[in-house]
Parts: sequence; structure tokens; C-alpha cells
Amino acid sequence: MIGLMITGRPSPQREASGAIVELPAQLAGDALIDGQSPPADSYLIDWSRDRRGRARFIVRPGSVEDVQALVRWCSQSSVAIVVQGGNTGLVGGALPDNSDYAVLSLERLNRIRCVDPLDFTLQADAGAVLQDVKDAAEASDMTFPLALGAQGSCTIGGNVATNAGGINVLRYGMTRDLVLGLETVLLDGTLWNGMNGLRKDNRGYSLKQLMIGSEGTLGVVTGVEVRLSPRPTQVETAYVGLGSFRQTCELFRMARHLCSDLLSAFEVIGEECLPLAHLIDPNLRSPLTQACPVHAIVELACGPGIDAGGLLETMLTRALEAELIRDGVVAQSRSQAATFWAIREGLVEGQARRGFHVRTDLSVRLSEVPKLVEQARACIVREWPGWTSLTYGHAGDGNIHFNVLPPIDCEIGEARTVGQAVLTRLYELVGALGGSFSAEHGVGRSRSDVFWAGLSQRERQIHTAIKAAFDPAGLFNPGCLMPDRGDL
Amino acid sequence: MIGLMITGRPSPQREASGAIVELPAQLAGDALIDGQSPPADSYLIDWSRDRRGRARFIVRPGSVEDVQALVRWCSQSSVAIVVQGGNTGLVGGALPDNSDYAVLSLERLNRIRCVDPLDFTLQADAGAVLQDVKDAAEASDMTFPLALGAQGSCTIGGNVATNAGGINVLRYGMTRDLVLGLETVLLDGTLWNGMNGLRKDNRGYSLKQLMIGSEGTLGVVTGVEVRLSPRPTQVETAYVGLGSFRQTCELFRMARHLCSDLLSAFEVIGEECLPLAHLIDPNLRSPLTQACPVHAIVELACGPGIDAGGLLETMLTRALEAELIRDGVVAQSRSQAATFWAIREGLVEGQARRGFHVRTDLSVRLSEVPKLVEQARACIVREWPGWTSLTYGHAGDGNIHFNVLPPIDCEIGEARTVGQAVLTRLYELVGALGGSFSAEHGVGRSRSDVFWAGLSQRERQIHTAIKAAFDPAGLFNPGCLMPDRGDL
Repeated sequence: MIGLMITGRPSPQREASGAIVELPAQLAGDALIDGQSPPADSYLIDWSRDRRGRARFIVRPGSVEDVQALVRWCSQSSVAIVVQGGNTGLVGGALPDNSDYAVLSLERLNRIRCVDPLDFTLQADAGAVLQDVKDAAEASDMTFPLALGAQGSCTIGGNVATNAGGINVLRYGMTRDLVLGLETVLLDGTLWNGMNGLRKDNRGYSLKQLMIGSEGTLGVVTGVEVRLSPRPTQVETAYVGLGSFRQTCELFRMARHLCSDLLSAFEVIGEECLPLAHLIDPNLRSPLTQACPVHAIVELACGPGIDAGGLLETMLTRALEAELIRDGVVAQSRSQAATFWAIREGLVEGQARRGFHVRTDLSVRLSEVPKLVEQARACIVREWPGWTSLTYGHAGDGNIHFNVLPPIDCEIGEARTVGQAVLTRLYELVGALGGSFSAEHGVGRSRSDVFWAGLSQRERQIHTAIKAAFDPAGLFNPGCLMPDRGDL
Repeated sequence: MIGLMITGRPSPQREASGAIVELPAQLAGDALIDGQSPPADSYLIDWSRDRRGRARFIVRPGSVEDVQALVRWCSQSSVAIVVQGGNTGLVGGALPDNSDYAVLSLERLNRIRCVDPLDFTLQADAGAVLQDVKDAAEASDMTFPLALGAQGSCTIGGNVATNAGGINVLRYGMTRDLVLGLETVLLDGTLWNGMNGLRKDNRGYSLKQLMIGSEGTLGVVTGVEVRLSPRPTQVETAYVGLGSFRQTCELFRMARHLCSDLLSAFEVIGEECLPLAHLIDPNLRSPLTQACPVHAIVELACGPGIDAGGLLETMLTRALEAELIRDGVVAQSRSQAATFWAIREGLVEGQARRGFHVRTDLSVRLSEVPKLVEQARACIVREWPGWTSLTYGHAGDGNIHFNVLPPIDCEIGEARTVGQAVLTRLYELVGALGGSFSAEHGVGRSRSDVFWAGLSQRERQIHTAIKAAFDPAGLFNPGCLMPDRGDL
């Protein structure tokens, strides 16, 4: 009990009847879902279906003012808030694990506010779905280049909270690089409005950059202004086969030099991943005419006045001559290009279809990718025979999803236990290479222990002090990113 | 005396004879310059020659270990530290105004540590001169695209401290977007090493992003790892004349759409600036055949396999047809392009030659540039007849250096007094447009009052708490960016 009092979170407002009381009127009714009712499930089970959360209630405000009212109420009532966008995160950052907490779902705060073709900007509510943001940009002859598997469900606010990455980072950067401004509700319910659309603004510490990637622990982002780019009118896609990950490094280097800054994607897929795509659709077959240990999808995008097809052909011809690639196919149409990408997406879905698997999101220097893959594969073969390594990811960013499947007949309990050991080993390995265990997915709840354990005492102090600067009561997403204050 | 004790900075270590004592041995001798000796002048007068600083001593460590020893000593002795790179800042951020403070010059910590062509990265000591960083990248067939007038003197550490901008921001971003990692000495003398070369790393709050642009108030950056881009093999430059700043907005939009992401510079120069370039060299003349109110330099850069010249010609032809430009010249050689850029650089030097002038660094939304310029010009004409408005800057970033020259016969004291009123008025104006008074130069000492006054109470608390998280004793660059603690 003392611990509970210290954390400053008394039991929340529920009458003996079980009804939630005292919430401002506009947050009751349709906006409110009891955490123990069946409709709560879709908010408390995430995309991966790995984890089930708990919450006292879910509230779905329909305006920024209502978010402010809720935060004010939670602040006064010492109720912790876990903000949720599309609930597509993979590290439990938006899933509370405490039935005293409130889930603040931004699903009703989902408007595109405006698109400006002179400024190349777009403003949206934080709950706007990424695909809707992309469509709105497209409709004005521009592009919002953030592209990831979950784009039909994830929200722009969630992208900001996690500093989302995806397949076009090598050209356009992470979410961090695409955000011009944020509108944020602070702990006292006041609105911090940085939606000024400025491309350059060197006034003081960058609170915007601090907020991006803070995983809902510093405030509630309610609005986002992003920079747009001109819509590419040409997209050229190649699917190539290589002998090794060392060759993908060399090919990337060559492609960067030959294709100016028009290279927009450089994805790699280990040949062993292909059977997973077949689980989703048996027609998803590599277009290569021979077996190759590593496949890569290389894409160029640009506007008019450039022979993008010729540029890609030149690059592939040189790569063949230099014996960097063994085989390659250039898509003759957008639909053929879509079949290449379907393999990349299919393997991720196929993996989920297989059920539990060890999922990582490792990054190292570009040049260290081959070493990471070699060491990780050798480690699995040596220490966990029967488990299957899968290597794919964003080689142009040094970001590899090195995942591991248990044997098909492995009992789930055993798979989880062994899986934890596998994960620990892979994190050690990436750490020894100076890399990161979280390239783009964030820390969330599932990695907060390993994150915190890896920090120096000074880094912990700094993180704790920054958290306290925004959220002295510890009410924003406790237990995410850093340990709950009760556990410190 | 009580105030002095509260700030925790007792009178520093100087014997009755005037010698500085107690510094670790490796920091004495050649490394040390007495703040009252003549050699101190070059550290205490900045590029603009507007401001003279004061310091007890200047110390020039030759290694990271020596920086750590110095910081540890200063921390133990409660001596404030002002870090200085090339001393080219324009806002007094590296110029202490207190004769108890130490200047930590990084001029001897100036090595390029390594360049990696597979990773597209470069590591350098923080005191490395920007031009040396650029040359080292170039020598390995890559480019470090940060480009600004002071690049022959400013240092990469100073660029990080101020989040420097310059002429290529529209394509490559600010310093913030180019830094992969930092090596930083914290207040206790420990080294925080984030030089991991990772392109994606979502572990916790971004201390790197917080450090960038913090103007030496959080720690001492001793090493920087930057991302490089392929070296452009083609650079095409046009000098064009337009009728108004509204047309520059339209031209920029057209150029962005037509030139993919190959547009690397889009600078504007008000016609009234030309006579300043003549002060430097009477041969610096506009290449246009007719008078035009606004001149612009537009540059494309790319690798092989693209008809960059054709792309630029197409863009200019369409702009002529759309009557966006009145006249234009495409450089036929690198040396002709250099004459275009000499006008842009000459006007800045000519301005300095004129002596005191009101210097701003304003930014607004791209689409608000015309309104900013119109309002500012009208205001000067109306309120300070005889003073001359100068408009130039980075229109592709919404960043305008709107400067104002006093009448030629204006006495310096009066010029400074009136100049302060002009500045205040211009800051009000940019504020009303939702813009920033510091696009790229930073806050420093000369703008700390206006910066602090413009923050909300919550923003001040957050800034103060972040500062305290890194520097509880207030020893890193007191008085820069935020008021000295004694003044809060």
C-alpha cells in the first residue's frame, strides 16, 4: 500500500456498481469503454497478438479540447494515461499492464486538417491513419514518404511517438526527419503548440525532437505537421539475387553513387524467408531464374525529365559486370513491381501465421551488416539446432530484422522460454558490434528492462530528469521506456 | 557577494602575482592563455567584431582526455566553461562576458579521425574546421553538404552546437539531420560516447538531438560522426531575375516538382543588395540583361546518368513561359557559376564593410516569405526613413536575412540605439507571422532575453529542468541561451 501511495496513483473512480464516475460529461457515453467489457479487447490486444493488456477504461475523445479535459482530469485524479494510436506497435508501448490505468485512444481524432502545396506541408490530427495522410498528400500531387507494413492501421501520432522508420528511410529519413511541428497536451492540460511549419528554427532546446520517439511518456501529441515531397511520377523497381550480404553492401554503395539521391528503397531478403511468403500465397515466387542466397528489392523514384529506367538498367549492368549480382529482373509495370513487394510483405505475414517467433529489430553500421548476419546465424545453428533463422530488412539503413522460428512441433511454453534466451543472446551480439536492439520499433514495455540495464548511471539520471521535467507525477505511460517509478 | 555564492562560482584560481594556478599540468604551458594578455584578443572578439568578451583564461587542450581533465577541474573548482570552436558565431554564444569564466578552445582538437566509404560516414574531432571535413569527404568521392559562408573557419563542433544551416539545407537538412553520433564530455568529466554510426536507433530519449543546437550549455562535444552523401559529379547553376518574392515562391514550387530531389540551393537576393557586393569588387555585377527586383540562384547537383543541364533548362523554359522569371542565365562553366555565388558572398562581406548594421535571421513558412518581406520593408520605410532594407537568404527554407543599414552618416551610438528598436520591431513582425527570430544562428547571448521572454512559464520550467539534468551547477556556458541562474 505504501508503494501505491508513493507512486501517487490511488484507486481510480469506479463506483461500487462498477460504473466509472466523475469523468467530464463529454468524455462519457459513446466516448467511454469499460476496460472489463468485451469491446475493450480490440484496445487491449495488439497487432502481434503476443500480449494482452489491462486497463480500467478506454476513452476516445473527439476533439483536442476533450483530450485536454481528460488529461486535466487524470492529472487531478492521479490516473495514469496510456495513449494509443492504431495499436500496431510491436513492443507493447501502447498496452497498459495495470487495471488502474486509462487508455486514451486517438481513433476519433483522425482528421486531415490541411494540405499546403506551396509550403509542401500537411497538418493532421494525431489519430489520422498513416494511409489517409499519404492519400491526402498524393491527392495534392505530393508524397508523404513514410511507408511501413502497418500503414493502413497505424496513426501519424503513433509514428511520432515511436519515431517510425520503414522502407524509405534511406532517402527521406525517419519520422523525426519528416515532422515540422507538433501540437501536444502537457500534464497540466495546457496545449504546447509548435505547429508553425518552420523548416529552420533554432530557438532553444528542441522540445519537438525530444517528444519524437518518447513513446507517450512526456505528453499527448494531438496534432502533427509534416513536410511533404513532390510526388514521384516514375518508380522503377528491380528484384535482384546476390551471393552474400557482403555483396549487398557493395551493391548499395554502387547504387548510392550511381543513382544520385533517387534511390528510395533497398530491402534485403534471405532466401530462407521465401517459404514464409508461400504460406500466404503459393504464387508468391521469386522472379529470379536461379537460386541466390540473398534477394534484394531496389527502387528508384523521381519526377519527369529523368530516364529513371535507364539509370536502373545502368546500375544493374555494372553490378552484373562487377559480379555483385547473379541475376536480376526489372519490373515492366507497376503490377509486376507489386508482386516483388508482395514477397517482402508476405514473408512478414507468413511469419505471423507461423505463430510465436523471436522478433528483432537490430541495427548496426551499414558495413557491419554481413558480420551481424553471419554471427547471428552461426549462433542459432550452434546453440539452438532445429530453430530457423530468418534475415530480412532495410540494408540501406543497417537495420536487420533477424527473426527466429521455433521448430514446428515446439510447445508454446517451451518456445517462449527458449525464445527469451535466443533474444538475450542476439542482443548481446548486436551490442558487441556497437549496434542497437531497437532500430525502429522502440523500447515499449517489452524492452524496457534491457534498455534500462544498458544505460550508464548518468544516462539513467538524465532520462529520469527529462521525464520529470514533463511529467513529475509519472502519469504518462508508466512502465513504458523506463521502469515505473515504483520499480526504480 | 551573496549572489555570487548562490551561483556557486567563487573567484577562480589566480595568485596575487596574476598567474593561474592549480590547472592540471598538461593544460598549462602552451595550452594556456591569460585572459588579459594580448593573445587572448583573438578568442574574445568574434567574427562580426560587434562584441568583445571577457574571460579569466583560454585553454586549448590537445586531446579528449585533456578536455575531460579540464571539465573535471572546472567542475571541482566551480569555474564556468564557455566552449569555443571557430569563433564565427553571430550571437555571442562562444564569447563569455565574465572575467571569472574559462574559454575552452577546441582549435587543437582538429583531426579528421576517419572516413568510411562503405558506411558513408566521417568521424572528426569537434574542433575540425568545416572546410577540412568537406575536403576529407571529397577526397573519398563523397560530400559533406553543410555549406556556409564561414566554412573556412567554423568548426564541426560549433556547427553541432548551433545546429548550423546554410545554403544546402533544402536538400540535405540542417546539421541536426547530418549528425549520426556525438562524443560528449559531461559535467563530471565522463565521456558519453554515441559515435556508433547508426542510421536508426530508437532507444529512449534522443540525447543526441537534445545536444545538437544546445549551444554548449549541456556538455562539451569533442567528437562528431556525420553522414556523407555521394559526391555530385554534375552541378548546374542558374542566375535568374524575378518580379517579386511571390514569384520566387511559385518558382521554388515548380523547381521542386520538376527537379526531383536534385535541387540543392535556392537563394534569393533583393536587387538593393547588389551595391554591397560592389563594395567588395566592382566587377561583381548581375549577369541579367535587365533590372529585376529579385534575383535568385538556383542549383541542381547529381551524379552521372542524368541530364542535369537539360533538367535545369526545362525548368527555366517553363518558368519563362509561365512568366515567373523575366530573365535568366545558366552558368556555362564552374568558374561562371562561381561568379554568381561571388555576388551572394560579396553582399554579406560588403555589409560587414559598411560597419554596424541590424542583422536578422528570420524564418517563416515558405508561403509567408512575401508577406514578411513586404511588411518588413514597409515598416522600415514608414518608421525609419533613411535606413536601408536588405533582403536575401534561403527562400527554399523560408529563411530570410532581412538586414537594415543605418544612413551612411549616422553616428555609431545612435545607430546602435535605433538599431535595437528596429530589431525589436522586426522580431514582433516575424512573431505575428508565427515565425522565428532565430532560423539558423541560434540564441547565444545577444538573443537570450528575447528568447526567454517569448517562452511560456511551462517552457521555461522544461528548459530549466533539462539544463539541470545535464548541468546542475550551471557551469556550461552560463548566460547563453537562457539567463544566468543568478538572473532567473
